[in-house]
This record gives sequence, structure tokens and C-alpha cells, in this order.
Amino acid sequence: MTKIYFKDLKNYLDQDISLEGFIDKIRDLQYVQFIILRDGTGEVQVTVEKNEDNKKLNEIVSNLTLESTLKVTGKLLNSPNVKLNGMEMIPTEMKPTSVSLSELPIDIKNKDKALRETRLDYRFLDLRRKDNRLFFECETCFEHALREFFIKNDFIEIHSPKIAKGTAESGAEVFKIDYFGEEACLSQSPQFYKQMAIAAGFNKVFEIGPVFRAENSHTSYHATEINMADAEIAYISSFEEVMDTEEDWLKYGIDHLWEEYGEKIEEVFKVEKPNTKVDFPRITLKEAKEILKDKYHFVGERVDDLERQEEKLLCQYAKEKYQSDFIFITKFPFSARPFYHMLDENGDTNSYDLLFRGVEITTGAQREHRQDILKQQMITKNIDPNSLDFYLEFFAYGCPPHGGFGVGIARIMMELFQIDNIREATFVYRGPTRLNP
Amino acid sequence: MTKIYFKDLKNYLDQDISLEGFIDKIRDLQYVQFIILRDGTGEVQVTVEKNEDNKKLNEIVSNLTLESTLKVTGKLLNSPNVKLNGMEMIPTEMKPTSVSLSELPIDIKNKDKALRETRLDYRFLDLRRKDNRLFFECETCFEHALREFFIKNDFIEIHSPKIAKGTAESGAEVFKIDYFGEEACLSQSPQFYKQMAIAAGFNKVFEIGPVFRAENSHTSYHATEINMADAEIAYISSFEEVMDTEEDWLKYGIDHLWEEYGEKIEEVFKVEKPNTKVDFPRITLKEAKEILKDKYHFVGERVDDLERQEEKLLCQYAKEKYQSDFIFITKFPFSARPFYHMLDENGDTNSYDLLFRGVEITTGAQREHRQDILKQQMITKNIDPNSLDFYLEFFAYGCPPHGGFGVGIARIMMELFQIDNIREATFVYRGPTRLNP
Repeated sequence: MTKIYFKDLKNYLDQDISLEGFIDKIRDLQYVQFIILRDGTGEVQVTVEKNEDNKKLNEIVSNLTLESTLKVTGKLLNSPNVKLNGMEMIPTEMKPTSVSLSELPIDIKNKDKALRETRLDYRFLDLRRKDNRLFFECETCFEHALREFFIKNDFIEIHSPKIAKGTAESGAEVFKIDYFGEEACLSQSPQFYKQMAIAAGFNKVFEIGPVFRAENSHTSYHATEINMADAEIAYISSFEEVMDTEEDWLKYGIDHLWEEYGEKIEEVFKVEKPNTKVDFPRITLKEAKEILKDKYHFVGERVDDLERQEEKLLCQYAKEKYQSDFIFITKFPFSARPFYHMLDENGDTNSYDLLFRGVEITTGAQREHRQDILKQQMITKNIDPNSLDFYLEFFAYGCPPHGGFGVGIARIMMELFQIDNIREATFVYRGPTRLNP
Repeated sequence: MTKIYFKDLKNYLDQDISLEGFIDKIRDLQYVQFIILRDGTGEVQVTVEKNEDNKKLNEIVSNLTLESTLKVTGKLLNSPNVKLNGMEMIPTEMKPTSVSLSELPIDIKNKDKALRETRLDYRFLDLRRKDNRLFFECETCFEHALREFFIKNDFIEIHSPKIAKGTAESGAEVFKIDYFGEEACLSQSPQFYKQMAIAAGFNKVFEIGPVFRAENSHTSYHATEINMADAEIAYISSFEEVMDTEEDWLKYGIDHLWEEYGEKIEEVFKVEKPNTKVDFPRITLKEAKEILKDKYHFVGERVDDLERQEEKLLCQYAKEKYQSDFIFITKFPFSARPFYHMLDENGDTNSYDLLFRGVEITTGAQREHRQDILKQQMITKNIDPNSLDFYLEFFAYGCPPHGGFGVGIARIMMELFQIDNIREATFVYRGPTRLNP
């Protein structure tokens, strides 16, 4: 028999049914026993009177432990006096389908009663908390909407290889694999393979999948394995088109998420919907630095990039001046960008960062697709072109102008839900000192 | 300006526009030059008369190489005499946006002119072939439909870690990673983490993502990195429900694929739509062995599993007797199954294989969720329970009965499109001797 989800219980009033869920609460009183069952979609009260007929059931209830799973067969009654949804299940049969130890290593009702690291050790219990459950339902919804946007706009989905030859994009911070005796590494980004798809004549491609970073970073924003959404678009005439696409894409995702879960999100996470009704402002890094200096009297350490405090102030600026939670910062100098970004006539890159609520969530750019210039840019960056010959070859037999972007899903989810640590926004987090569970 | 796709050209007749695509053909005649541009959505003829006014354009055309990309500005004319769609572009400006070497390393019009391995070396050119382009458009459509089914049925999407501690599910055939000095490995399957989600109270979960197998296999069905679709469902009362879900899911995916691409698929790949109108037959392994012996006089080498020839014959049987392209074979003995499959009262597993057109595409099962029995089954299989203590812990604090399945997307795509080698059905194939590109 197919599971009846508790959110649908009102369709089963006065019927003989079986229900199953986790035991959320037990109250064993003098004349009656109450059990609250929970299945993630809702809760239901099971009421067992203490009497001779119920002797067996009463005994079962006395031996139950919280968080065990229980199957209850009986009649679902309309009981206006019952606080929980005005209904109760009167059982004729009960059977634990799994048994929990009587003491749990963490409190699953109260996040703050255990250290984060302890909660992560028991992530499967930590995830039973309601806010966590809602978070991953929302991530599912958001990610599906992001994919739907791509599908509706004729993007082809690719699955680029995660095992790469040598050291891939960057020489440093890659995990090394023993590949049948050969040295290989885990991919840091689908960048080269997105571009390969463009060289293959695919007009627009996307991928949502894992990337791996061997950074020994312990910040609240870093993980060694993250879920990235990547897109690449051919035949662009400017990187403005890349920004257009990303802006439309994010608005689509956020609108869909709020349409489906907005009320619950605002209730549980106490956050507001980002403004998707305004154009995201676009300013150059140079303009940004001037605003920071003139308006906020802040001069960052680097002239070619932004530090966290500058990102925060620029988002404050975007919110005050444009009522936007997002802002594009464009035209970073080549020194702050990878070799494959296309340069403009001033030697700056046709690239951008997208900031959201104080944090950089994306780097995007038009890519250099002319092999000779690309090779030259490698040399400028002290990269030996021979080490990337397989990549340079993509540009030898025709490759249209193109550009794209990448976004870490957890990072944008963190800002959407105002969660302060990526460890909480990842199903199973991986960091330098965490391989468990 | 946004790219105009050639499939939409009829909306731009008599307009001044810019078009861009790969140069598919050039004919340089005495009085006129023809170029065929291709952008993956269609083709268009560019016609340049040879005359004084066109001198510059004529010179550009004379220097073009096939497979370069070209931007053409001019007027799109309705020209009934032109074979290709009855229209032609009369240019006023032309500019190559990338230049191809004059000789290509493989013939992109004719698959058979190069060895497969050479084509794989130049996968980005191989993918320019029309059948390949169609294949990955179809994979995109199919995979999205598979996800859509999950979303509509309230599954939560998970992204399980690909970096795992120690040796994960099986002791052998895993890729080892140097994880900050510690030994880790690449995940062979999201199995344990799907089950972790069930223990976390997620009712139904799915994941589509990469898994890694360090098998030194060179068959047409093996790859070291594959894109797997996995699902796990809680509160099942039998593994029949797992089969029900998988059957509905595959039918949904196939119906959607054919709805959108059926005509093109049948034309290009000369294949028929699998029958989604009948129930997939379900027979036990014991029954299957009897049918093989009685009807086909075939006795396989193993009594507890099926070999390729047996799978073929059983599919033939399903097609003849039930008009079904699929058949479920159930109740494999424990000796042929992993330790976590649930056993029935006879000691057989509550598991199944799904065969499709002669090939096994799935293993599914109800899982053992009772920690004590699970531990016992490990010991029977000579697995040290301590080596999987993190996994056993998932079953210590309540975990509902559950089951699930996994399908390699490339494998099912191969059978749908009758492609004989997984190397052709993967965007970028990875095998023991192939890390390139």
C-alpha cells in the first residue's frame, strides 16, 4: 500500500488506514496515551485509551522510544478538540518499523544545544530539524527552476568529466588522483569543457554538478566540494549578454522559489524576497572604487579587486540607490582575472562579478576565443601553453565568440536564507578536516 | 544584439539582419559565390555575386576556410529558387569571427572515415556531427523529464559528496585521492547517502550526478566516470513499490522524449519508440531460469545471476509474450547482491534487475534498515562492520523501511538510440586509457 502523507490526511477522515512516521512526542498519562507522528509533510496525533481492550497497544506504547518509526493501523477521526489539526488516529494495530536508541547524541528540536561540529557528525539527525528540511525542499525547487530556465531557452545540458589530466585550470589547489598509475586530478571547474561544447557547435550549454577545490580554507564560505551551476553562451557580441542571461535566470529562479515557498521561507527564516522587479545595476570597478571613496570614504587594499568590506558597501549602495539586492561590477583589470577572459581596448577584461547581499556569488566574462591571443595571454600569466595544448586545440578549427558564468548553489542559497555558514547549507559538507559522514 | 537562430529565419524575411554560424560549405563559381552557414538549429545560404561592388566581399569569401565562424550582415530574401529553405542572405558586410585551419583532423560529415579513438581525440569536432548534436539535445530533454517526474512527485534532490572516507561501499575498484595527507576515495555510488537522507526523514530523494569506478575494463559498456540517476523512497511496504516508481518514471521520460523529438530520432537513428503502454512484466530469477531452459534450451553458467546472453533471451521473451521492451527480474539470491539488500523469508533478496532491449540497466531493491540484521549481513559477506560504522549509525536512531534504484543515463540512452558503444553516448568519455580531452 502506498504511503499516505500527513499533509493529505483530511482526505482520509473516518476511514480505516495505515499511517507511518517518526515518533515525535509521547505522552503517557494515567488514562490515555498520546503519540505524535511526523513524516516531514505534517504531524498527526495517535490516541490510545488505557483499558483492557487496548492492553497490547498500551504495552507497545510504553516501550516506544522517540524517533523510532511506527506504523499505525486504525481509524482517522475528526476530533475538533484535538489541537493538532482537529483530528486523531484511533489505532487497532501498531508496529514499530524501526527502533531508536533512547538517547540521541544531539537535540533535534534545538539547534543551539549542540556544537556545530557535533551536529555535523550527526548530520542525518541534524537534518531532521524542520528548518533544514524546508531548506532542502527549497533548494530542490530553486535548482529545478534554474534548470527549467535553461531548458526553456534551448540550452543543452552537459556532464563534463570530473577526472582531468594533469592539473587542469590552475596549477595549485587540486586534489590528485591515482588514475591507473597515471597522475590525474579532480576538476576545479567545468570551464574548459563548457568551452569545448561551444567549439563543438553547441549554442548554449549548462551544467549543475560538483567541483573540487583543495584549498586548506576553514572560512564559513569555503568547502572542498561544491555544487556549481555553470552556463556558457555562443555568438555573443558583448559580455553584457552574459549578464542579461544571468540576471533573467536568477530572477526566474527566485520568483519560482517564492511563488512556491515564499510564505514558509519568510516565516521560518525571517528573510525577505530579493527584489526581482528592478534591473540589477551595472557599474565598472573604476566607478565602484570612486563610489567607495567618495560616498563611504573607504579605500580597499587592492586596486584591481574587491575585498569583503567593499562588496558589502557596494551592495548597500545598490540597495539604497536602486532598491536592488544585486549589483554587477564590471571590467576588472587582467591582473585579477584568469588568462581566458577577453580583454577590451584598454586592456581591462570583459568580465564581471555579481554581488548579492554583500557577497560575490558569480564571476562571468566573455572568453578569448582567438587562439593566438589566448596563447599570448597565457604567456603573460606565466602559463606554459604546452601544458594546456588540449584546451588550445579547441580554438584551432573555428569557435564562435562566447561567454558564460558560474555560481555556487550553496553560496546563493546562504544569502537567500541568510544562513551564516556553508556547512549548514550543504547536504553533506566536505572541508579540510571533515570527511565524515 | 541577440543571436538570431536559423530555425527562426522565416520571421526575418526582407529585413536587414546579422547572422552568424559555422561555414559548412563554400562554392566559389565563376560569377557567384555561395556559402552555407550552420548554427545547429538550421542552415542558410549566403549568396555573393562577383562584381565590382562586391569586390571586398568576394575577396573575403575567397580566403574563407570551412568550419571558421562567420558573421554576415545584409538582407534576408525570399528566394523560391534556392533549394535550402527557399531563402538566401545577400550580404553587405562579412567578418570571420574565428578562423579554422584549412585541414581538419577528422571528417565531421562522415563518422566512418576516422577510427573511433581518433574521433574521441577530437571529440569537440566529432560532436559537430548532426547525429551527435541531436543525441545530446535528446539527452537534455530526457534527463529533464526524468527530473521533472521526481519534482512532481515531491522528491527532494540531494547532492551527495563525491569524496568519501576510506574505501566506501566496496573495498576494491575505487580511485584513491590524497586528501590533505589523508587517504580518501571517489564515490562509486550515492547509495549510503541516499539512505542517510532517508534516515534524516526525507521521504523520497533523487540525485543525478557522477559516480566513479576504477575498473580496468575496456568493454563497450564500461566507463570510469558515469552519470547516474539514483532514487530512494521511504515507507515502502514492498520492493514492488520501487519497481512501480521506476516503471512510471521511465515511461514518463520516454513519452516526453518522443513527444518532443520522436520524429527526428526515428529519422536519424532508425529506432522505434519503446512500448510505454504495457506493464513491464515481472518474473523471479527462478522463473526466468526455467523459461531460459524450457523455451530457449539455454542454461547459463551462474545459477544466482544472469549473463548477457540470458538477458538478451529474456528481453526477446518479454517482447514476444508481453510486447514489452522492458522486463523486471526479481528475487536474486543473496550471493549475487550487496550486503544491504533486504532478505525475504526464503533468504532471497527483495531486489530486481531491470532489463531493456537485452541489457541490464538497473539494480533496485528494498534495503535492510534494521541495524542488527544489517550488521549480520555484513559479517556474512565478510565485511568488517567497524569499517562502515558511519553508515551503520544511520540506522541507530530510527529509519523507516525504504528502497531505491540507480540507472546509468548513458546506458539507457545507448539502448534507446541503439548506439553500440558508451564512448559515443558520453559527452567526454573517461576510460582506463583515456583522460583526453
